[in-house]
Amino acid sequence: MEIAAMKISIAQLNYHVGDFSGNLDKMQQAVRTARAQGSDLICFAELATCGYPPRDFLNFPDFIRRAEETLEELARTEAHGIGILLGTPRPNPVPEGKDLYNAGCFLENGKVTFVQHKTLLPTYDVFDEYRYFEPAASWKTFTYKGVRIALTVCEDLWNVGNANPLYTICPMDELAREDPDLMINLSASPFAYDHAEERVHVLRTNALRYRIPLIYVNAVGGQTELLFDGGSLILSGNGQVFDEMPYFETCLRTYDLAEIQANTQNREQSREKYPLIHEALLTGIRDYFSKTGLEKAILGLSGGIDSAVTAVLATRALGKDQVQVLLMPSAFSSGHSVDDARKLAENLDITHTLLPISSLYDTWMAALKPHFDGRPFGLTEENLQARIRGTLLMAFSNQFGPILLNTSNKSEMAVGYGTLYGDMCGGLSVIGDLYKTEVYELARYINREEELIPENTLIKAPSAELRPGQKDSDSLPDYGVLDRILYQYIEKSKGPAEIVAQGFEPGLVARVLQLVDRNEFKRHQTAPVLRISPKAFGMGRRMPIEGKYLQIPVWQP
Amino acid sequence: MEIAAMKISIAQLNYHVGDFSGNLDKMQQAVRTARAQGSDLICFAELATCGYPPRDFLNFPDFIRRAEETLEELARTEAHGIGILLGTPRPNPVPEGKDLYNAGCFLENGKVTFVQHKTLLPTYDVFDEYRYFEPAASWKTFTYKGVRIALTVCEDLWNVGNANPLYTICPMDELAREDPDLMINLSASPFAYDHAEERVHVLRTNALRYRIPLIYVNAVGGQTELLFDGGSLILSGNGQVFDEMPYFETCLRTYDLAEIQANTQNREQSREKYPLIHEALLTGIRDYFSKTGLEKAILGLSGGIDSAVTAVLATRALGKDQVQVLLMPSAFSSGHSVDDARKLAENLDITHTLLPISSLYDTWMAALKPHFDGRPFGLTEENLQARIRGTLLMAFSNQFGPILLNTSNKSEMAVGYGTLYGDMCGGLSVIGDLYKTEVYELARYINREEELIPENTLIKAPSAELRPGQKDSDSLPDYGVLDRILYQYIEKSKGPAEIVAQGFEPGLVARVLQLVDRNEFKRHQTAPVLRISPKAFGMGRRMPIEGKYLQIPVWQP
Repeated sequence: MEIAAMKISIAQLNYHVGDFSGNLDKMQQAVRTARAQGSDLICFAELATCGYPPRDFLNFPDFIRRAEETLEELARTEAHGIGILLGTPRPNPVPEGKDLYNAGCFLENGKVTFVQHKTLLPTYDVFDEYRYFEPAASWKTFTYKGVRIALTVCEDLWNVGNANPLYTICPMDELAREDPDLMINLSASPFAYDHAEERVHVLRTNALRYRIPLIYVNAVGGQTELLFDGGSLILSGNGQVFDEMPYFETCLRTYDLAEIQANTQNREQSREKYPLIHEALLTGIRDYFSKTGLEKAILGLSGGIDSAVTAVLATRALGKDQVQVLLMPSAFSSGHSVDDARKLAENLDITHTLLPISSLYDTWMAALKPHFDGRPFGLTEENLQARIRGTLLMAFSNQFGPILLNTSNKSEMAVGYGTLYGDMCGGLSVIGDLYKTEVYELARYINREEELIPENTLIKAPSAELRPGQKDSDSLPDYGVLDRILYQYIEKSKGPAEIVAQGFEPGLVARVLQLVDRNEFKRHQTAPVLRISPKAFGMGRRMPIEGKYLQIPVWQP
Repeated sequence: MEIAAMKISIAQLNYHVGDFSGNLDKMQQAVRTARAQGSDLICFAELATCGYPPRDFLNFPDFIRRAEETLEELARTEAHGIGILLGTPRPNPVPEGKDLYNAGCFLENGKVTFVQHKTLLPTYDVFDEYRYFEPAASWKTFTYKGVRIALTVCEDLWNVGNANPLYTICPMDELAREDPDLMINLSASPFAYDHAEERVHVLRTNALRYRIPLIYVNAVGGQTELLFDGGSLILSGNGQVFDEMPYFETCLRTYDLAEIQANTQNREQSREKYPLIHEALLTGIRDYFSKTGLEKAILGLSGGIDSAVTAVLATRALGKDQVQVLLMPSAFSSGHSVDDARKLAENLDITHTLLPISSLYDTWMAALKPHFDGRPFGLTEENLQARIRGTLLMAFSNQFGPILLNTSNKSEMAVGYGTLYGDMCGGLSVIGDLYKTEVYELARYINREEELIPENTLIKAPSAELRPGQKDSDSLPDYGVLDRILYQYIEKSKGPAEIVAQGFEPGLVARVLQLVDRNEFKRHQTAPVLRISPKAFGMGRRMPIEGKYLQIPVWQP
């Protein structure tokens, strides 16, 4: 079949939730660039007017009105001599069903001339789409400059031929009845370290099923915990990847449809876990700061691996002049801890301030002593040190304005090995979706060319250093074992019997799972976690606080 | 029409999420009681096996297996000589669609003999049902002892004749085709101060539409933030309330179907806002403690209205021996504050400890001075006082085991008038869903017969007392105005233009709405809030942290 000649631009942009004028501005600029490149059609992401995910802002009629105005303004100012495809929330005109549609819109000659609603509304993990949107009940293609286009929105392509058990409709099968020449999918698909691989597989399966080219447009950039990785794809009808846009970068490229059609080569990027996670976290930090309008970060540097990795990422994301660290040793800190922390700060060339907490700690103990009379040193005293440090960091944050970065890892967040209002303080959790063993892997990736993080930080036994000679292994199993159990419970939703069947010791499994459940109350009060795995703590994992599934929770802050 | 003779028991029980053996035990006992009363049929709530809401525990196959075992065990041991109706999650036998159904099951002669799945799956506010459940696609009645019963689950009755715009199916219209004699609805419907009124209205509309009796079974008790109020209802076919069970109490009553049928009287309870809220909060506190297996509470008593009301509620819920308060005046505390706090503690007969924070504060200031050189007294110093108090309370919590209760109200949580890791500490927010003006109303209700809360606490101007002569009104508009603006934005989802159109000053509206949005990051880190309104902070209000809808958020912890 002969396809009409057409140049198509893909704009992989970084949208900001609720920033209608900013999003409009970016799209207008992209349209002008595409027009200058002689493009016939430009494609933006899902919900490009308002950004993704707008969450409960979608319940505000005023918010929807602004999205509508943005759509109309884009059509009026830019949809001339070029067609524009983008996603936006649209009011459901009839009273029945949810108030909104998640719509893909085509703009031409100053107007919205075609709309296809999204059918498959992800409502699992971090997604809440059925909370807001009515699914499409009809499917139509549209023809533009002689090309018949099947337009879908994100998840709509993830039920290839109804093979996905979550759904009972395959929107593309419906659209295929009209014999389209081209599929275009507008997405806002968040990153997880294994997601790009799966995405290429799913999209290739679509191309091969319908034997026509497929254009997939993703958003890029961080939106608090969700990180959009871009990686927009152009597939030929034979399933080959004609082009894959970079990960975690805005990008605009223009393609010739005939070339896509004729392509026989496969051009995928490499997708190694730690380089991807590294870029994802830099994006997450950078966008959290830029989208909140702030620049500076502060954190406590203990000499341990977690704060070291966090400091490196913050410095790379924000620049060395924007990051400040406090070194806050107590009487229980080992000498090497301060040395390791200072050495890292010097390697990163960031401001570091030494603030020993011993005298503050002694004052606190003196104030508490009359009330705690005679009780032995214990958890109270350990937590007190962490809270003194948290309060010091917050005082600097209040006084000078930097955002405090949280340095907890996923293993300790899982089992509650951290002090609420102490080391669990912070506005953003940078590595809270990396198990301890993954933090080490990331540190080795960071150090692959030079010893940025002192080697001693990588090789010494992990310790909270809150009492004499303390090691993590006094209270926790070896991280190699712990993390594998946690992964089965958290990422894989396995129950205790299933995990034991994998060869783990029953008592240990019971203890770990109980710790995870009973510490839900702590995680409820922590900062948003940059999500890099398929199951992160935060909006994608919603657990009861006082559930009694595997145990009786206890209050142990 | 002559209806068959039948005695029906309603068991309004307090289930606990994940406590399969506990829930089974309660149901078994209730069945035995009902059988002793000569009952033919006993009805339990929605998801009675596993408790409501199980949230993402529903994603664990092991959890579902335990629910199935509980159902089978109940059938095997108790479904003899009496029919049992209850809700439970059930696996979807086919791969298409979500993995589970939210099922109503009928047990008879030791077996599950009838199942009707829930059709209308609330996916808004605090509800996430479409995250887990596939809606019913077929509807059948069943006949038991000559009575044809239309079984529905909760929301299924909330789309009377398709008048609810959220839905496009009316399950009861489908069931009505089979000409049932009786409707039974199994619910788990959480409290809001205006909900019981609406519930009676909706159920009456159903009774009148189908002209048959309606039995509505609700759960009772708190499940972290959600409070189930009971108020199970028996309506005659003429729309009269034959009986309404008490609010916030477990209850088992047996009714004669012929009497329900013949009834011409209406027996509804009174539903005054503050008595209901009072009972709701006591239930919320009591069940949070009992379901986490803990007994003791601690809080800071400032002499202000918020901590006073919280202390009264905690004492009433847990008993005076279980509540301890700290009085922690600073140099900026007025003399009457300590007096008011002490007087309240004496009125409540609870342990109170005076712990002035001046010397700790001075030590902190001395430690920080070299780093903050020459900067004037400001927010840092204010927040520091709050964090010293938070750390003191947490030290007592660690040392002696009580749960720290948070005393923030909804107005200050809304605008961020509170210190993160300071007065925003705590495991449970007791009055976080009451606007400041509502806290005063509740205080007056508490004091209606005697001056339990010192009158001075009620009449003095609200103040955080963190700097000399400070009043809330220095930074915030009058609470009477503020709360009305907040209500329009939070409860009513009105945009700025709509609120201004109600007569509020545009600059003030803009400022208040910006404060609400930019303080999302603080609310993200706070304790679960006992929900008493139709729109509480927490799981029912999901807002972006770095959204830019009305402003640029700033970090001001």
